[in-house]
Amino acid sequence: MDTIFSKIISGEIPCEKIYEDDHVFAFLDIIPTNPGHTLVVPKKWSSDLLDTDEETLKRLIVVVQKIAKAVMEATGAVGVNVAQNNREGAGQKVFHLHFHVIPRFEGDGYEHWHGKPYENGEEKLVGEKIRKML
Amino acid sequence: MDTIFSKIISGEIPCEKIYEDDHVFAFLDIIPTNPGHTLVVPKKWSSDLLDTDEETLKRLIVVVQKIAKAVMEATGAVGVNVAQNNREGAGQKVFHLHFHVIPRFEGDGYEHWHGKPYENGEEKLVGEKIRKML
Repeated sequence: MDTIFSKIISGEIPCEKIYEDDHVFAFLDIIPTNPGHTLVVPKKWSSDLLDTDEETLKRLIVVVQKIAKAVMEATGAVGVNVAQNNREGAGQKVFHLHFHVIPRFEGDGYEHWHGKPYENGEEKLVGEKIRKML
Repeated sequence: MDTIFSKIISGEIPCEKIYEDDHVFAFLDIIPTNPGHTLVVPKKWSSDLLDTDEETLKRLIVVVQKIAKAVMEATGAVGVNVAQNNREGAGQKVFHLHFHVIPRFEGDGYEHWHGKPYENGEEKLVGEKIRKML
């Protein structure tokens, strides 16, 4: 499947490349949440986490760790978020699997989503539904 | 290291358990971003992504995928976010590595962080710094 990421991997579209091996490619997001925000993608196309083979996932997560460490050290970040969005309804914009590695800085102002406790034992029903799908 | 998650894994603190194998444990977040929000954690303690051994990471990401699929199907979500926060400055609250698997629904109102383009070739300097740390 041809996306902007396959053109970046092939070199047809330029990027600020951070890392490359036989299976994984990493480059700077051009519209970073913070400077140093890096995208880690498989060279072999898959749309998102759900349709990716296990071998590719394992290779990716090891590179995500490597990049997260390097981004922290290089930018002097106080923390790093790893984020991975699946489907348009979850904010996915490019349909080629990618992990975001986002360095965080004091006072950068990004807010994490708040939660809301379950009521009336609803968690037991939700848990049961999920376990049935495993 | 003893955290609330080690007590959940050992059964000392109850949880709505979703999945367990020899190395990985998954349970519902009690304050979910959306119902079905599941945490996937290694049984072997590590603080965050940065200090975790590769074997553990590989086992985790395969379970994260399995849980993401099940959560989507069980909840009828339109998408799913995987998020993983490292260090207090990145919103980490429990210092035992965990992946959030968050189902998303139409109109749930969660906003993704916006980015800001690099200026004046700054991305080349940032890229160079990160590559030096790899």
